Amino acid sequence: MAELERRLSRIEDERAIERMIASYGPLVDAGVAEATGDLWAVDGSYDVEGWPMRSRADVVAMVGSDPHQGLITRGCCHFLGPSVVTVTVDGDSAVAVCESILVRNRDDGFTVARAGANHFRFQRIDGRWQIVARTTRALNGQVEARDLLAAGIRGVAR
Amino acid sequence: MAELERRLSRIEDERAIERMIASYGPLVDAGVAEATGDLWAVDGSYDVEGWPMRSRADVVAMVGSDPHQGLITRGCCHFLGPSVVTVTVDGDSAVAVCESILVRNRDDGFTVARAGANHFRFQRIDGRWQIVARTTRALNGQVEARDLLAAGIRGVAR
Amino acid sequence: MAELERRLSRIEDERAIERMIASYGPLVDAGVAEATGDLWAVDGSYDVEGWPMRSRADVVAMVGSDPHQGLITRGCCHFLGPSVVTVTVDGDSAVAVCESILVRNRDDGFTVARAGANHFRFQRIDGRWQIVARTTRALNGQVEARDLLAAGIRGVAR
Repeated sequence: MAELERRLSRIEDERAIERMIASYGPLVDAGVAEATGDLWAVDGSYDVEGWPMRSRADVVAMVGSDPHQGLITRGCCHFLGPSVVTVTVDGDSAVAVCESILVRNRDDGFTVARAGANHFRFQRIDGRWQIVARTTRALNGQVEARDLLAAGIRGVAR
Repeated sequence: MAELERRLSRIEDERAIERMIASYGPLVDAGVAEATGDLWAVDGSYDVEGWPMRSRADVVAMVGSDPHQGLITRGCCHFLGPSVVTVTVDGDSAVAVCESILVRNRDDGFTVARAGANHFRFQRIDGRWQIVARTTRALNGQVEARDLLAAGIRGVAR
Repeated sequence: MAELERRLSRIEDERAIERMIASYGPLVDAGVAEATGDLWAVDGSYDVEGWPMRSRADVVAMVGSDPHQGLITRGCCHFLGPSVVTVTVDGDSAVAVCESILVRNRDDGFTVARAGANHFRFQRIDGRWQIVARTTRALNGQVEARDLLAAGIRGVAR
Protein backbone atom coordinates (compact mmCIF):
# COMPACT_ATOMS: atom_id res chain seq x y z
CA MET A 1 0.00 0.00 0.00
CA ALA A 2 2.78 2.43 0.93
CA GLU A 3 4.61 1.24 -2.18
CA LEU A 4 1.60 1.92 -4.44
CA GLU A 5 1.21 5.35 -2.86
CA ARG A 6 4.88 6.14 -3.52
CA ARG A 7 4.59 5.10 -7.18
CA LEU A 8 1.37 7.06 -7.61
CA SER A 9 2.85 10.17 -6.00
CA ARG A 10 5.81 10.05 -8.33
CA ILE A 11 3.53 10.00 -11.37
CA GLU A 12 1.48 12.86 -9.93
CA ASP A 13 4.64 14.90 -9.36
CA GLU A 14 5.94 14.29 -12.86
CA ARG A 15 2.55 15.05 -14.37
CA ALA A 16 2.21 18.28 -12.38
CA ILE A 17 5.53 19.46 -13.83
CA GLU A 18 4.68 18.29 -17.36
CA ARG A 19 1.42 20.22 -17.05
CA MET A 20 3.15 23.41 -15.95
CA ILE A 21 5.52 23.23 -18.91
CA ALA A 22 2.62 22.44 -21.28
CA SER A 23 0.77 25.47 -19.96
CA TYR A 24 3.63 27.92 -20.56
CA GLY A 25 2.93 28.39 -24.28
CA PRO A 26 -0.84 28.88 -23.94
CA LEU A 27 -0.34 31.30 -21.03
CA VAL A 28 2.36 33.40 -22.64
CA ASP A 29 0.62 33.49 -26.03
CA ALA A 30 -2.63 34.50 -24.33
CA GLY A 31 -0.66 37.23 -22.62
CA VAL A 32 -1.84 36.25 -19.14
CA ALA A 33 1.02 37.82 -17.22
CA GLU A 34 0.23 36.92 -13.61
CA ALA A 35 -0.57 33.27 -14.30
CA THR A 36 2.58 32.93 -16.39
CA GLY A 37 4.62 34.40 -13.56
CA ASP A 38 3.00 32.02 -11.07
CA LEU A 39 4.77 29.13 -12.77
CA TRP A 40 7.98 30.57 -11.31
CA ALA A 41 9.23 30.78 -7.75
CA VAL A 42 9.32 34.31 -6.33
CA ASP A 43 13.08 34.38 -6.90
CA GLY A 44 13.10 31.99 -9.88
CA SER A 45 15.07 32.85 -13.00
CA TYR A 46 14.46 32.65 -16.74
CA ASP A 47 17.54 33.06 -18.83
CA VAL A 48 16.71 33.37 -22.52
CA GLU A 49 19.17 34.79 -24.98
CA GLY A 50 19.33 38.54 -24.65
CA TRP A 51 16.72 38.66 -21.91
CA PRO A 52 17.78 37.56 -18.40
CA MET A 53 14.97 37.51 -15.82
CA ARG A 54 15.75 37.02 -12.15
CA SER A 55 12.38 36.80 -10.42
CA ARG A 56 8.69 36.00 -10.86
CA ALA A 57 8.10 39.75 -11.13
CA ASP A 58 10.57 39.90 -14.04
CA VAL A 59 8.62 37.16 -15.87
CA VAL A 60 5.35 39.03 -15.29
CA ALA A 61 6.98 42.19 -16.61
CA MET A 62 8.25 40.35 -19.70
CA VAL A 63 4.74 39.18 -20.62
CA GLY A 64 3.42 42.71 -20.24
CA SER A 65 6.33 44.33 -22.08
CA ASP A 66 6.02 46.06 -25.44
CA PRO A 67 8.17 43.50 -27.29
CA HIS A 68 6.08 40.57 -26.04
CA GLN A 69 2.75 42.35 -26.51
CA GLY A 70 3.89 43.21 -30.02
CA LEU A 71 4.53 39.53 -30.68
CA ILE A 72 1.11 38.36 -29.54
CA THR A 73 -0.94 41.13 -31.09
CA ARG A 74 0.73 40.27 -34.38
CA GLY A 75 0.34 36.53 -33.77
CA CYS A 76 2.75 33.98 -32.32
CA CYS A 77 2.90 30.46 -30.93
CA HIS A 78 5.46 29.43 -28.30
CA PHE A 79 5.22 25.75 -29.12
CA LEU A 80 6.89 23.50 -26.54
CA GLY A 81 7.20 19.76 -27.14
CA PRO A 82 6.58 16.97 -24.62
CA SER A 83 8.94 17.34 -21.67
CA VAL A 84 11.12 14.72 -20.02
CA VAL A 85 10.98 15.14 -16.24
CA THR A 86 13.31 13.59 -13.68
CA VAL A 87 12.38 13.99 -10.02
CA THR A 88 15.27 13.60 -7.60
CA VAL A 89 15.36 10.88 -4.99
CA ASP A 90 14.32 13.18 -2.15
CA GLY A 91 11.21 14.02 -4.15
CA ASP A 92 11.33 17.79 -3.75
CA SER A 93 13.36 18.89 -6.76
CA ALA A 94 13.26 18.02 -10.43
CA VAL A 95 14.93 18.67 -13.75
CA ALA A 96 13.03 18.82 -17.04
CA VAL A 97 14.03 19.27 -20.64
CA CYS A 98 12.12 19.93 -23.83
CA GLU A 99 12.60 21.40 -27.26
CA SER A 100 10.51 24.23 -28.62
CA ILE A 101 9.83 26.32 -31.66
CA LEU A 102 8.59 29.89 -31.87
CA VAL A 103 6.19 30.43 -34.77
CA ARG A 104 5.44 34.02 -35.75
CA ASN A 105 2.82 35.51 -37.99
CA ARG A 106 4.49 37.86 -40.48
CA ASP A 107 3.47 39.72 -43.60
CA ASP A 108 4.15 36.70 -45.76
CA GLY A 109 2.52 34.19 -43.39
CA PHE A 110 3.66 32.06 -40.49
CA THR A 111 7.36 31.27 -40.10
CA VAL A 112 9.56 29.45 -37.62
CA ALA A 113 11.44 32.28 -35.96
CA ARG A 114 13.49 30.03 -33.66
CA ALA A 115 14.03 26.46 -32.50
CA GLY A 116 15.15 26.18 -28.89
CA ALA A 117 16.54 23.93 -26.17
CA ASN A 118 14.88 24.35 -22.78
CA HIS A 119 16.23 23.23 -19.40
CA PHE A 120 14.16 23.64 -16.23
CA ARG A 121 14.92 23.18 -12.54
CA PHE A 122 11.90 22.85 -10.26
CA GLN A 123 11.55 22.87 -6.48
CA ARG A 124 8.53 21.98 -4.38
CA ILE A 125 7.96 25.18 -2.38
CA ASP A 126 4.98 25.70 -0.06
CA GLY A 127 3.51 22.42 -1.29
CA ARG A 128 3.55 23.11 -5.02
CA TRP A 129 6.11 22.81 -7.79
CA GLN A 130 7.72 26.06 -8.93
CA ILE A 131 10.34 26.84 -11.56
CA VAL A 132 13.53 27.97 -9.86
CA ALA A 133 15.57 28.23 -13.06
CA ARG A 134 14.77 27.98 -16.74
CA THR A 135 17.40 28.36 -19.44
CA THR A 136 16.55 28.55 -23.14
CA ARG A 137 19.05 28.67 -25.99
CA ALA A 138 18.51 28.71 -29.74
CA LEU A 139 19.36 25.48 -31.56
CA ASN A 140 21.48 27.39 -34.03
CA GLY A 141 24.50 25.17 -33.73
CA GLN A 142 25.89 26.63 -30.53
CA VAL A 143 27.39 24.11 -28.14
CA GLU A 144 25.57 25.64 -25.17
CA ALA A 145 22.15 24.64 -26.54
CA ARG A 146 23.28 21.07 -27.10
CA ASP A 147 24.80 20.92 -23.61
CA LEU A 148 21.48 22.05 -22.11
CA LEU A 149 19.68 19.15 -23.77
CA ALA A 150 22.34 16.64 -22.75
CA ALA A 151 22.33 17.86 -19.13
CA GLY A 152 18.54 17.66 -18.88
CA ILE A 153 18.19 14.25 -20.41
CA ARG A 154 21.07 12.44 -18.73
CA GLY A 155 20.13 9.10 -17.33
CA VAL A 156 16.89 8.76 -19.26
CA ALA A 157 17.89 5.93 -21.51
CA ARG A 158 18.58 2.72 -19.52
CA MET B 1 -7.57 2.40 -0.71
CA ALA B 2 -10.58 4.38 -1.94
CA GLU B 3 -8.33 7.45 -1.93
CA LEU B 4 -5.68 5.71 -4.07
CA GLU B 5 -8.38 4.54 -6.45
CA ARG B 6 -9.71 8.08 -6.78
CA ARG B 7 -6.24 9.50 -7.55
CA LEU B 8 -5.54 6.72 -10.04
CA SER B 9 -8.89 7.21 -11.79
CA ARG B 10 -8.21 10.90 -12.19
CA ILE B 11 -4.88 10.20 -13.91
CA GLU B 12 -6.57 7.61 -16.14
CA ASP B 13 -9.26 10.11 -17.12
CA GLU B 14 -6.76 12.85 -17.90
CA ARG B 15 -4.58 10.44 -19.85
CA ALA B 16 -7.54 9.14 -21.85
CA ILE B 17 -8.30 12.71 -22.92
CA GLU B 18 -4.65 13.54 -23.64
CA ARG B 19 -4.50 10.42 -25.78
CA MET B 20 -7.58 11.36 -27.76
CA ILE B 21 -6.14 14.79 -28.50
CA ALA B 22 -2.74 13.28 -29.38
CA SER B 23 -4.48 10.90 -31.79
CA TYR B 24 -6.32 13.64 -33.69
CA GLY B 25 -3.37 14.63 -35.88
CA PRO B 26 -2.35 11.09 -36.84
CA LEU B 27 -5.98 10.15 -37.58
CA VAL B 28 -6.82 13.20 -39.66
CA ASP B 29 -3.50 13.13 -41.55
CA ALA B 30 -4.00 9.42 -42.26
CA GLY B 31 -7.45 10.33 -43.55
CA VAL B 32 -9.21 7.78 -41.35
CA ALA B 33 -12.61 9.45 -41.38
CA GLU B 34 -14.69 7.17 -39.14
CA ALA B 35 -12.09 6.90 -36.38
CA THR B 36 -11.55 10.67 -36.44
CA GLY B 37 -15.29 11.19 -36.09
CA ASP B 38 -15.45 8.72 -33.20
CA LEU B 39 -13.45 11.19 -31.09
CA TRP B 40 -16.57 13.38 -31.13
CA ALA B 41 -19.97 12.91 -29.50
CA VAL B 42 -22.79 12.22 -31.96
CA ASP B 43 -23.89 15.84 -31.59
CA GLY B 44 -20.45 17.27 -30.82
CA SER B 45 -19.21 20.39 -32.61
CA TYR B 46 -15.94 21.48 -34.20
CA ASP B 47 -15.76 25.16 -34.95
CA VAL B 48 -12.70 26.01 -37.01
CA GLU B 49 -12.45 29.26 -38.91
CA GLY B 50 -14.58 29.11 -42.02
CA TRP B 51 -15.70 25.55 -41.38
CA PRO B 52 -18.35 25.00 -38.66
CA MET B 53 -19.19 21.34 -37.98
CA ARG B 54 -22.14 20.45 -35.78
CA SER B 55 -22.03 16.67 -35.43
CA ARG B 56 -19.83 13.59 -35.57
CA ALA B 57 -21.15 13.04 -39.08
CA ASP B 58 -19.94 16.52 -40.07
CA VAL B 59 -16.43 15.68 -38.84
CA VAL B 60 -16.44 12.42 -40.79
CA ALA B 61 -17.58 14.34 -43.86
CA MET B 62 -14.81 16.92 -43.40
CA VAL B 63 -12.11 14.22 -43.41
CA GLY B 64 -13.55 12.72 -46.58
CA SER B 65 -14.07 16.07 -48.30
CA ASP B 66 -12.15 17.20 -51.37
CA PRO B 67 -10.36 20.05 -49.56
CA HIS B 68 -9.09 17.75 -46.80
CA GLN B 69 -8.24 14.90 -49.17
CA GLY B 70 -6.36 17.43 -51.27
CA LEU B 71 -4.34 18.43 -48.22
CA ILE B 72 -3.30 14.90 -47.30
CA THR B 73 -2.58 13.65 -50.79
CA ARG B 74 -0.30 16.65 -51.20
CA GLY B 75 1.19 16.17 -47.72
CA CYS B 76 0.29 17.80 -44.40
CA CYS B 77 0.82 17.46 -40.67
CA HIS B 78 -1.76 18.63 -38.13
CA PHE B 79 0.74 18.93 -35.31
CA LEU B 80 -0.86 19.37 -31.88
CA GLY B 81 1.26 20.05 -28.82
CA PRO B 82 0.88 18.51 -25.37
CA SER B 83 -2.55 19.31 -23.95
CA VAL B 84 -3.47 20.64 -20.53
CA VAL B 85 -6.56 18.82 -19.25
CA THR B 86 -8.75 19.86 -16.33
CA VAL B 87 -11.42 17.39 -15.22
CA THR B 88 -14.30 18.95 -13.28
CA VAL B 89 -15.07 17.99 -9.72
CA ASP B 90 -17.97 15.72 -10.65
CA GLY B 91 -15.56 13.77 -12.83
CA ASP B 92 -17.72 13.54 -15.95
CA SER B 93 -16.72 16.64 -17.89
CA ALA B 94 -13.40 18.21 -18.78
CA VAL B 95 -11.79 21.14 -20.52
CA ALA B 96 -8.53 20.88 -22.46
CA VAL B 97 -6.33 23.34 -24.27
CA CYS B 98 -3.39 23.02 -26.61
CA GLU B 99 -1.62 24.90 -29.34
CA SER B 100 -1.06 23.50 -32.80
CA ILE B 101 0.59 24.15 -36.11
CA LEU B 102 -0.46 22.99 -39.55
CA VAL B 103 2.51 22.09 -41.75
CA ARG B 104 1.87 21.72 -45.48
CA ASN B 105 3.96 20.30 -48.25
CA ARG B 106 4.09 22.80 -51.10
CA ASP B 107 6.04 23.20 -54.30
CA ASP B 108 8.90 24.88 -52.50
CA GLY B 109 8.90 22.46 -49.56
CA PHE B 110 7.21 22.28 -46.18
CA THR B 111 5.81 25.46 -44.66
CA VAL B 112 3.85 26.41 -41.56
CA ALA B 113 0.43 27.25 -42.97
CA ARG B 114 -1.11 28.16 -39.60
CA ALA B 115 -0.54 28.29 -35.86
CA GLY B 116 -3.66 27.72 -33.81
CA ALA B 117 -5.26 27.85 -30.38
CA ASN B 118 -7.45 24.85 -29.52
CA HIS B 119 -10.09 24.62 -26.80
CA PHE B 120 -11.93 21.35 -26.11
CA ARG B 121 -14.88 20.43 -23.95
CA PHE B 122 -15.29 16.71 -23.18
CA GLN B 123 -18.09 14.73 -21.60
CA ARG B 124 -18.09 11.14 -20.41
CA ILE B 125 -20.95 9.63 -22.43
CA ASP B 126 -21.81 5.92 -22.40
CA GLY B 127 -18.69 5.27 -20.34
CA ARG B 128 -16.12 6.90 -22.60
CA TRP B 129 -14.85 10.44 -23.10
CA GLN B 130 -16.17 12.26 -26.16
CA ILE B 131 -15.56 15.73 -27.55
CA VAL B 132 -18.71 17.80 -27.21
CA ALA B 133 -17.17 21.04 -28.48
CA ARG B 134 -13.84 21.95 -30.07
CA THR B 135 -12.98 25.48 -31.11
CA THR B 136 -9.86 26.35 -33.08
CA ARG B 137 -8.68 29.84 -33.99
CA ALA B 138 -5.56 31.00 -35.80
CA LEU B 139 -2.95 32.69 -33.63
CA ASN B 140 -2.77 35.62 -36.03
CA GLY B 141 -3.19 38.27 -33.40
CA GLN B 142 -6.96 38.05 -33.00
CA VAL B 143 -8.22 38.44 -29.46
CA GLU B 144 -10.53 35.44 -29.81
CA ALA B 145 -7.59 33.01 -30.14
CA ARG B 146 -5.91 34.42 -27.06
CA ASP B 147 -9.18 34.25 -25.10
CA LEU B 148 -9.55 30.57 -26.02
CA LEU B 149 -6.14 29.80 -24.55
CA ALA B 150 -6.82 31.84 -21.42
CA ALA B 151 -10.21 30.17 -20.89
CA GLY B 152 -8.77 26.69 -21.27
CA ILE B 153 -5.80 27.18 -19.01
CA ARG B 154 -7.42 29.10 -16.18
CA GLY B 155 -6.54 27.77 -12.79
CA VAL B 156 -3.56 25.74 -13.95
CA ALA B 157 -0.86 27.72 -12.26
CA ARG B 158 -1.19 27.63 -8.45
CA MET C 1 -5.07 -4.16 -4.48
CA ALA C 2 -3.87 -6.39 -7.32
CA GLU C 3 -6.24 -4.47 -9.59
CA LEU C 4 -4.81 -1.10 -8.55
CA GLU C 5 -1.30 -2.43 -9.07
CA ARG C 6 -2.19 -3.62 -12.55
CA ARG C 7 -3.68 -0.23 -13.51
CA LEU C 8 -0.69 1.61 -12.07
CA SER C 9 1.79 -0.63 -13.87
CA ARG C 10 0.07 0.00 -17.16
CA ILE C 11 0.39 3.77 -16.71
CA GLU C 12 4.04 3.36 -15.74
CA ASP C 13 4.70 1.28 -18.84
CA GLU C 14 2.99 3.74 -21.15
CA ARG C 15 4.78 6.66 -19.51
CA ALA C 16 8.16 4.94 -19.79
CA ILE C 17 7.61 4.59 -23.54
CA GLU C 18 6.29 8.14 -23.93
CA ARG C 19 9.38 9.35 -22.11
CA MET C 20 11.74 7.43 -24.37
CA ILE C 21 10.08 8.91 -27.45
CA ALA C 22 10.12 12.40 -25.91
CA SER C 23 13.83 12.01 -25.21
CA TYR C 24 14.75 11.08 -28.78
CA GLY C 25 14.80 14.65 -30.10
CA PRO C 26 16.83 16.14 -27.23
CA LEU C 27 19.32 13.24 -27.39
CA VAL C 28 19.82 13.28 -31.13
CA ASP C 29 19.99 17.09 -31.32
CA ALA C 30 22.51 17.11 -28.48
CA GLY C 31 24.48 14.55 -30.45
CA VAL C 32 24.70 12.10 -27.56
CA ALA C 33 25.30 8.99 -29.64
CA GLU C 34 25.47 6.23 -27.02
CA ALA C 35 22.39 7.36 -25.10
CA THR C 36 20.43 7.71 -28.34
CA GLY C 37 21.43 4.19 -29.29
CA ASP C 38 20.40 2.87 -25.88
CA LEU C 39 16.77 3.65 -26.75
CA TRP C 40 17.03 0.77 -29.25
CA ALA C 41 17.35 -2.97 -28.72
CA VAL C 42 20.73 -4.40 -29.71
CA ASP C 43 19.18 -5.69 -32.93
CA GLY C 44 16.49 -2.98 -33.21
CA SER C 45 15.91 -1.23 -36.52
CA TYR C 46 15.32 2.36 -37.61
CA ASP C 47 14.05 2.70 -41.14
CA VAL C 48 14.01 6.33 -42.24
CA GLU C 49 13.82 7.24 -45.90
CA GLY C 50 17.18 6.70 -47.54
CA TRP C 51 18.85 5.56 -44.34
CA PRO C 52 18.06 2.02 -43.11
CA MET C 53 19.62 1.13 -39.73
CA ARG C 54 19.53 -2.46 -38.52
CA SER C 55 21.00 -2.36 -35.01
CA ARG C 56 21.69 -0.19 -31.99
CA ALA C 57 25.22 0.19 -33.30
CA ASP C 58 23.86 1.55 -36.58
CA VAL C 59 21.87 4.19 -34.67
CA VAL C 60 24.97 5.17 -32.68
CA ALA C 61 26.91 5.43 -35.94
CA MET C 62 24.19 7.61 -37.49
CA VAL C 63 24.40 10.14 -34.65
CA GLY C 64 28.17 10.30 -35.00
CA SER C 65 28.11 10.46 -38.80
CA ASP C 66 29.19 13.49 -40.82
CA PRO C 67 25.68 14.19 -42.17
CA HIS C 68 24.11 14.20 -38.71
CA GLN C 69 26.98 16.12 -37.12
CA GLY C 70 26.66 18.64 -39.93
CA LEU C 71 22.98 19.07 -39.10
CA ILE C 72 23.52 19.72 -35.41
CA THR C 73 26.57 21.96 -35.73
CA ARG C 74 24.52 24.07 -38.12
CA GLY C 75 21.44 23.89 -35.90
CA CYS C 76 18.45 21.57 -36.00
CA CYS C 77 15.47 20.40 -33.95
CA HIS C 78 13.99 16.92 -34.32
CA PHE C 79 10.64 17.90 -32.88
CA LEU C 80 8.40 14.94 -32.03
CA GLY C 81 4.83 15.48 -30.88
CA PRO C 82 3.03 13.66 -28.06
CA SER C 83 2.93 9.93 -28.75
CA VAL C 84 0.00 7.54 -28.57
CA VAL C 85 1.12 4.28 -26.96
CA THR C 86 -0.76 0.99 -26.96
CA VAL C 87 0.62 -1.80 -24.78
CA THR C 88 -0.46 -5.28 -25.80
CA VAL C 89 -2.46 -7.52 -23.51
CA ASP C 90 0.53 -9.62 -22.47
CA GLY C 91 2.18 -6.40 -21.28
CA ASP C 92 5.58 -6.96 -22.86
CA SER C 93 5.21 -5.32 -26.25
CA ALA C 94 3.82 -2.03 -27.43
CA VAL C 95 3.13 0.07 -30.50
CA ALA C 96 3.44 3.86 -30.54
CA VAL C 97 2.77 6.53 -33.11
CA CYS C 98 3.57 10.21 -33.34
CA GLU C 99 4.10 12.92 -35.88
CA SER C 100 7.23 15.01 -36.11
CA ILE C 101 8.83 17.92 -37.84
CA LEU C 102 12.49 18.55 -38.54
CA VAL C 103 13.43 22.21 -38.20
CA ARG C 104 16.76 23.29 -39.65
CA ASN C 105 18.76 26.45 -39.25
CA ARG C 106 19.73 27.75 -42.69
CA ASP C 107 21.25 30.90 -44.12
CA ASP C 108 17.88 32.59 -44.28
CA GLY C 109 16.74 31.39 -40.85
CA PHE C 110 14.88 28.39 -39.50
CA THR C 111 12.74 26.32 -41.84
CA VAL C 112 10.67 23.15 -41.65
CA ALA C 113 12.74 20.68 -43.63
CA ARG C 114 10.32 17.77 -43.22
CA ALA C 115 7.10 16.63 -41.55
CA GLY C 116 7.04 12.95 -40.71
CA ALA C 117 4.96 9.99 -39.60
CA ASN C 118 6.61 7.77 -36.97
CA HIS C 119 5.67 4.21 -36.03
CA PHE C 120 7.45 2.40 -33.18
CA ARG C 121 7.40 -1.17 -31.94
CA PHE C 122 8.73 -1.73 -28.42
CA GLN C 123 9.57 -4.86 -26.48
CA ARG C 124 10.37 -5.23 -22.81
CA ILE C 125 13.81 -6.84 -22.87
CA ASP C 126 15.91 -7.45 -19.77
CA GLY C 127 13.34 -5.56 -17.71
CA ARG C 128 13.28 -2.32 -19.71
CA TRP C 129 11.47 -1.10 -22.79
CA GLN C 130 13.52 -1.02 -25.99
CA ILE C 131 12.70 0.00 -29.54
CA VAL C 132 12.73 -3.06 -31.77
CA ALA C 133 11.56 -1.23 -34.90
CA ARG C 134 11.01 2.41 -35.80
CA THR C 135 9.80 3.49 -39.22
CA THR C 136 9.65 7.13 -40.30
CA ARG C 137 8.22 8.45 -43.56
CA ALA C 138 7.81 11.99 -44.82
CA LEU C 139 4.24 13.30 -44.87
CA ASN C 140 4.65 14.41 -48.48
CA GLY C 141 1.48 12.77 -49.70
CA GLN C 142 2.81 9.23 -50.02
CA VAL C 143 0.37 6.52 -49.00
CA GLU C 144 3.02 4.73 -46.95
CA ALA C 145 3.25 7.60 -44.44
CA ARG C 146 -0.51 7.69 -43.98
CA ASP C 147 -0.64 3.91 -43.57
CA LEU C 148 1.99 4.13 -40.81
CA LEU C 149 -0.18 6.56 -38.87
CA ALA C 150 -3.31 4.49 -39.38
CA ALA C 151 -1.56 1.28 -38.29
CA GLY C 152 -0.16 2.87 -35.16
CA ILE C 153 -3.37 4.52 -34.05
CA ARG C 154 -5.86 1.76 -34.78
CA GLY C 155 -8.23 1.10 -31.95
CA VAL C 156 -7.60 4.38 -30.16
CA ALA C 157 -10.96 5.96 -30.69
CA ARG C 158 -13.75 3.90 -29.07
